[in-house]
Amino acid sequence: MIKPTPISGFPEWLPAQRLIEQRYIDTIRRVYELYGYTSLETPAVERVSVLEAKGEVDKEIYGIGRLQGEAQQDWEMALHFDLTVPFARYVGQNYGSLHLPFKRYQIQKVWRGERPQEGRFREFYQADIDVIAEDSLPLHFDAEMPAIIHEVFQRLGIRAQIRINNRKILKGYYSACQVPEEQLIAVLREADKLEKIGEDGVKASLLKLGLQEDIIGKCLALSKLKGNCLSVLQRLSELKTDLPTDSNSQMLEQGISELEFIAKELDYIPEENLIFDLGIVRGLDYYTGTIYETTLPDYPILGSICSGGRYDNLASEFINRKLPGVGISIGLSRLLSHLFKCGAESSTRQCPTEYLITWPEPSMRPACLQIARYLRQHNIPTEIYHEPQALKKQVRYADRRGIPQVIFPHQWTPEEQMIEVKSLADGTQQTVHISSLTQD
Amino acid sequence: MIKPTPISGFPEWLPAQRLIEQRYIDTIRRVYELYGYTSLETPAVERVSVLEAKGEVDKEIYGIGRLQGEAQQDWEMALHFDLTVPFARYVGQNYGSLHLPFKRYQIQKVWRGERPQEGRFREFYQADIDVIAEDSLPLHFDAEMPAIIHEVFQRLGIRAQIRINNRKILKGYYSACQVPEEQLIAVLREADKLEKIGEDGVKASLLKLGLQEDIIGKCLALSKLKGNCLSVLQRLSELKTDLPTDSNSQMLEQGISELEFIAKELDYIPEENLIFDLGIVRGLDYYTGTIYETTLPDYPILGSICSGGRYDNLASEFINRKLPGVGISIGLSRLLSHLFKCGAESSTRQCPTEYLITWPEPSMRPACLQIARYLRQHNIPTEIYHEPQALKKQVRYADRRGIPQVIFPHQWTPEEQMIEVKSLADGTQQTVHISSLTQD
Repeated sequence: MIKPTPISGFPEWLPAQRLIEQRYIDTIRRVYELYGYTSLETPAVERVSVLEAKGEVDKEIYGIGRLQGEAQQDWEMALHFDLTVPFARYVGQNYGSLHLPFKRYQIQKVWRGERPQEGRFREFYQADIDVIAEDSLPLHFDAEMPAIIHEVFQRLGIRAQIRINNRKILKGYYSACQVPEEQLIAVLREADKLEKIGEDGVKASLLKLGLQEDIIGKCLALSKLKGNCLSVLQRLSELKTDLPTDSNSQMLEQGISELEFIAKELDYIPEENLIFDLGIVRGLDYYTGTIYETTLPDYPILGSICSGGRYDNLASEFINRKLPGVGISIGLSRLLSHLFKCGAESSTRQCPTEYLITWPEPSMRPACLQIARYLRQHNIPTEIYHEPQALKKQVRYADRRGIPQVIFPHQWTPEEQMIEVKSLADGTQQTVHISSLTQD
Repeated sequence: MIKPTPISGFPEWLPAQRLIEQRYIDTIRRVYELYGYTSLETPAVERVSVLEAKGEVDKEIYGIGRLQGEAQQDWEMALHFDLTVPFARYVGQNYGSLHLPFKRYQIQKVWRGERPQEGRFREFYQADIDVIAEDSLPLHFDAEMPAIIHEVFQRLGIRAQIRINNRKILKGYYSACQVPEEQLIAVLREADKLEKIGEDGVKASLLKLGLQEDIIGKCLALSKLKGNCLSVLQRLSELKTDLPTDSNSQMLEQGISELEFIAKELDYIPEENLIFDLGIVRGLDYYTGTIYETTLPDYPILGSICSGGRYDNLASEFINRKLPGVGISIGLSRLLSHLFKCGAESSTRQCPTEYLITWPEPSMRPACLQIARYLRQHNIPTEIYHEPQALKKQVRYADRRGIPQVIFPHQWTPEEQMIEVKSLADGTQQTVHISSLTQD
């Protein structure tokens, strides 16, 4: 006999937790679909050549090989490590069958061959949403992404702060500060560490890169601008007066006007949920305009739980077309696992059942079946207790599983259709016609 | 640049097909939950020792290993090849946290390291449902499984024939026929091939096993009994008169009475959907009572698309408790892929959008946003066209994606809230108050 134990990094939930996970996935899917995005599901497995098409991957990848095959030397196939590469491959492969602009979401597991370590997942859910178009994509899609994410967290009942910035502002401002073009990416990468290593740390790194102290000061001043769009842009215009006039200010101005456009489209979102934060950078080099991060004020330790941005070209590795897009991704497993751990999400509900029909004695089986069939026809999850036992035992069955209501079928006749219903939440008990249970 | 191509055995759907797959999964889940079964999801990955706990596995297994790691010699982890072994492992691991009887369903992908071959999948969906209890499980759960499956296929609009037999009838009858105990499994295995290789083929195999011709005749006579329960048992009682009285007839009688019980519980299911078929056997040795197969009269080539049965002990490899159960599994990907191939399931619908709001000119953007927000608040998937372009182009956008209705916002004011709605199905167009769209 084998005593099974959890495998580190592969989270698995108990029934009550899984019900919560289902609610989260259903909510995310519902909102994504409310905006007209369509579901895609790609296989877990891709060719290694596809996964590495962008060049060396910094994520650890799990290859797959047949157990009964020869010892694995050259990996041909592997598990996807994100949902962006499979989406790009899918678009490249099915370009002729897709209508552009193409709005898709993808809620799937991804795998990373991390070494076992607390809090590092090797299998986890991501919930991605992206829209791509050919040659150019209207800017208001950049506003749609935060609108969608705001609605997701609102429906989940979680306070969220969506942070928005624009790479054009960063690049334009930095280059106006005379940060050399070839150092831009490296400087962005350092600036991204501001929250992690603090102002002094970033300053030291930038000095090491050869930047002058006054330039560094200007860069750091930009990173501190956050708040509503109006106030941020006001303070930015003050910073701008210190800058030498420069050819690249055009890029800066474009970034500013994009940010203003998005702020206007999202003016209905409360200020505390939408923060224009010129300090966010995003690690990935491929974002070219709007960028997003999302923090949860009640769970600051999580950092950004939902990030993304605008990119110029989704699938250049797979198809010779320019396909710009914008997208965002929720780190679902990381979020849920934290909410479980800190007790913010828990439930006594162990199953989807709304009503347990008690089975008081063998002869009442037909009554139980008739009641169950009626409720199920009305899409109400219903169980019949599995044996004619003491009622106390049957009620305990419901109680243990968090089933909210119990039905006693003693008065049932196919003609009268009266039942007694007990709410386990408040202990109230009443006799009603069965149709009253289906009237919400 | 890499030209991406499909990987044989890893099915992937276009958006319209994926929408259909979602409908199938939603329907199966809905019905499973209507009977109070709760969702489980186990990781894709199990320890190889767990997957092989029952001994050598006849399915091909995909091991996983880190691409950047050393060459893989000893596989530690692998992708699950079914959902039964992970369920057994889960129950063994979480026994103390689960309430028995435990009713669970699991709709997940499984992987098999098959060599590429037409119609053989290497990644596919299964939709399993099982109930387990400790020491004994009431027989009416054996009737619940076909009830559930019947409702699934009814809601999917697919004609299905659920075939029911009982291993006790087979074993009891065969042993009354004086098939030696130690040959029982081998004989069952041969009998299982009746539909594949025909009566003569099976006869030849059984002769080779050393069975006498008259015994073989009796065995084959049993296999031909199918129809409603009453007629099948009547014909069985005729066959029984030919049998020598024998100690094992007790098992036969028990199987008969179990079959009768199930037939009585399911008497509301039309005869053409529920067939008592003493010819079905099921390959797996571990079934001990009721067994199920499901064929689709409109797609006979698929064979059984949904099979299962009663077993004595789910998790004996992982826990020292007797946990009998009964379960059944739908081969979803195999079913869908066939329905797609033969054109039985197809759709012009490319996205979940119900209404496309046209955007006639830039100034009308606020009206579009207000209409969209209203509909989304009422859970109606809605898109706003992405640019103020010619209306013809916008309607074509909806048409190409199978979006059923288009809204023209010209008359909209926040006070009056009137819109023009065009149905693309029948071309009708009318001016209505927006609230009329949310009244179903």
